[in-house]
Amino acid sequence: MSNFRVYNFAAGPSVLPLSVLERAGSEISSYRGCGMSVMEMSHRSKMFMDIFQRTQDKLRRLMNIPQNYHILFLQTGASGQFSMIPLNLIGGTGRACYAVTGNFSGLAAQEAKKYGEVSLACDTGDRGHCYIPRQDGLRVDPQADYFYYCANNTIYGTEWDYIPDAGGLPLVCDMSSNILSVPVDVSKFGVIYAGAQKNMAPAGLTVVIIKDGLQGHELPCTPLMMSYKTMIDKGSMYNTPPCWCIYMLGLTLDWVEENGGLEGMEKLKRLRAGMLYDTLESSRLFQLHADRDSRSGMNVTFRTGSEDLDGKFVQEAAAAGFVNLKGHRLTGGMRASIYNAMPVEGVEKLCDFIRAFDKNN
Amino acid sequence: MSNFRVYNFAAGPSVLPLSVLERAGSEISSYRGCGMSVMEMSHRSKMFMDIFQRTQDKLRRLMNIPQNYHILFLQTGASGQFSMIPLNLIGGTGRACYAVTGNFSGLAAQEAKKYGEVSLACDTGDRGHCYIPRQDGLRVDPQADYFYYCANNTIYGTEWDYIPDAGGLPLVCDMSSNILSVPVDVSKFGVIYAGAQKNMAPAGLTVVIIKDGLQGHELPCTPLMMSYKTMIDKGSMYNTPPCWCIYMLGLTLDWVEENGGLEGMEKLKRLRAGMLYDTLESSRLFQLHADRDSRSGMNVTFRTGSEDLDGKFVQEAAAAGFVNLKGHRLTGGMRASIYNAMPVEGVEKLCDFIRAFDKNN
Repeated sequence: MSNFRVYNFAAGPSVLPLSVLERAGSEISSYRGCGMSVMEMSHRSKMFMDIFQRTQDKLRRLMNIPQNYHILFLQTGASGQFSMIPLNLIGGTGRACYAVTGNFSGLAAQEAKKYGEVSLACDTGDRGHCYIPRQDGLRVDPQADYFYYCANNTIYGTEWDYIPDAGGLPLVCDMSSNILSVPVDVSKFGVIYAGAQKNMAPAGLTVVIIKDGLQGHELPCTPLMMSYKTMIDKGSMYNTPPCWCIYMLGLTLDWVEENGGLEGMEKLKRLRAGMLYDTLESSRLFQLHADRDSRSGMNVTFRTGSEDLDGKFVQEAAAAGFVNLKGHRLTGGMRASIYNAMPVEGVEKLCDFIRAFDKNN
Repeated sequence: MSNFRVYNFAAGPSVLPLSVLERAGSEISSYRGCGMSVMEMSHRSKMFMDIFQRTQDKLRRLMNIPQNYHILFLQTGASGQFSMIPLNLIGGTGRACYAVTGNFSGLAAQEAKKYGEVSLACDTGDRGHCYIPRQDGLRVDPQADYFYYCANNTIYGTEWDYIPDAGGLPLVCDMSSNILSVPVDVSKFGVIYAGAQKNMAPAGLTVVIIKDGLQGHELPCTPLMMSYKTMIDKGSMYNTPPCWCIYMLGLTLDWVEENGGLEGMEKLKRLRAGMLYDTLESSRLFQLHADRDSRSGMNVTFRTGSEDLDGKFVQEAAAAGFVNLKGHRLTGGMRASIYNAMPVEGVEKLCDFIRAFDKNN
C-alpha cells in the first residue's frame, strides 16, 4: 500500500481523514473478519443494517438531531434535492422564497420555478456573490411554502454566520459544504441536506434531515424515488442505498467524535481559517474575494489580480504538494478548501508557502 | 488485512472479484502513488477524468456498444430509471408497452402510469412469475413510444433467452441482474440500463446505455437530474458522479477482460448454472421455481416444499460458509445468485453441500 500523501485542497470530492481510509482499506475484503466486503453485503442483511443504524445514530448524536426529525441516506446528489424540495414542499400555496447567494442556490431557485412561483429574498449577484446579506436585507414572502438558502457557498467562499429568520416558514438549507463543521440548532430547520463529498464521505451519498410532518404533500408528478414520504416510510431503503458511502460516513463520524465532536470541528475550523485569512491579509500580493463579515471557514477564495501570477501560484503550490488550489471558473483566482479532514499542519505549511511566494514575486 | 472469505450468494449487492477488492485496497489512500484516494479526487481533475474515460471505453469495447450510443454513469438506482424512462420517452403518443415478468418490471409499469397510458404485453403473475413468455405470447401496442422489459428477474429466477421483437418500437431493457453475463447486440435496443450492484460494482451507480436521438423529448415536469439530455450534454457530470463506484466498475471490467470478455463470462455462467440446476434436478428433496425453458443463469430459485426444511438448509449452508441463500420474501424458499464474480469452485462446493443435505434429510 502506497502511503505518500499530498495536501488536497479540492472543493469536493475532497480530503478524508487518513485514518478513515486506512481503516476502510484494512477490512476491504473482509469486514470485521466476516468474509465479505461492505461493498458485497446485502443491504438488508443484519450486518449491513447494523452499520446503517449505527451511522444514523452517530449522526443524530453528533448533530443533536431531535427525535421528530428523520435522517435519510439518499442518492440524488445535492442537485437532485433542487427538484425534490419543491416537488415535496411547494404543494401548499405553490410559492417558495429563495435567498440566492451563489451558484448553487441560484440553480436551486431556477429548478423550483418548474414547479411553482419563486421569489428571491436576495440575490448577491449584484456584487459577484462576495457577501451574505444581513437579516434586514432579506425580503421574505410570508405566503411561501418554505424559505431556502445555502449555508456555505463553495465557489465564492462565503458562509452564513447566522440562521435567517423566515417568520415561521419551514427553513430549507443546503449544508453540503459546511455540515459537521459547527454545532447547529437543527430544531430551527424544516429540511437540512448535504451532498456527502465534502465533510462526510465519498461522492454518491446525500444526507437529508427532515422534520416529521413535512412529507406526504408531494406533487402528483413526483418520481417515486423523489418522494420524501416513500423514503421515510422505507427507512431510506425503497431500493438499494449507496452502502459503501454510508459505511464511510460511519467511519468519518467516529473520527469526528474522537476529535471533539462538532465543538472540536468548530475549533479546528476557526484555527485553520484564521491562519489562512491572516496570512493572506498581511500579504502584499493577495486579495480576498469575500467581504470580511461573510468569509467562509471552509473555502478561502483569493487572487493576485494577475492571471499569470495566479497560474504560477497554483502550479508552484502543486509542485510543493499543495494540490487543487485553482479557483472555480466562475471566480478565477485561487481557492483553498479547508474541510474538517484537512490537517492543521497542511494549512500551516500552505501559509508558509504563501508567505514565501508573496516575498519572491 | 483479514483474508477470510465466504461464498456469498446474495442477490445484490453481491460478490465482487477478490482481486478487484485487493487492488482497490492496495491503493485506497494513494491511487497509483498520487497522494490521494480515488474517494478524495475532484471529479473534474485530470486523474479522475482519465479513470472515468477509460472505464467508459472499456465498457464500450466489452459490450461492443456502437458509437451512436451514449454511456451514462448515474446515481438514480434502477428504481430511479422506472421514472426517468417514461419522463424522457413517453412524450410522443403518451403510450408505453410493458412486459411484466416479475416484481421490478411490475413496479416500472406502475410508475409509468403516472406519466402516460400503459398497456401490458404480458403479465406472468398468473403463474407466480415462473416463466418468460415466447414472442407469440406478447401483445405489442404498435402505437407505444417504447417497449419495456426486464431481462432477468432476480426474485423469481427467470431470464429472457431472446430479445423480443417489438415491431420497431424502441426497446428499453432493465439488465440490472444479467448485464455483462453474455454478449448482447446493443444495436437492437433504445435504452439498456443496469444498477451496478450485481455484475459491475458496489451499489450507488446506475449505468445507462442510450441510443442517440432518444434524448431531448422529456416531459416539462422532468427533474433536472432526470433528463437524459442534460446528462448526455454534461457527460454524466452535471453534478458530482459516484466516483468510487465508477473506479470499481473500471477494475471489474479489467477483470472481465482478463477472463475472456463477455464470451468468457457466458461460458462461466453456463458452467455454474448447469452444475447447480443438474444437482437440484437430480435431487430427491428440491423443486425448482422456474420453468425449464425460462431458467435464469444468474439467480437459481428452489425450495424443499417445507418451510422448516428450507430454514434448516439456509442455516446449515451459512454455517458451512455458503451465505445469503434465503429466497426473497415474495417467493420463499432458497435463491442462489451466481453472478460473474462467483467462483466456479463456490458453486461446486455448494452442489456438494446440496447433495449431502439431500441425502441426510
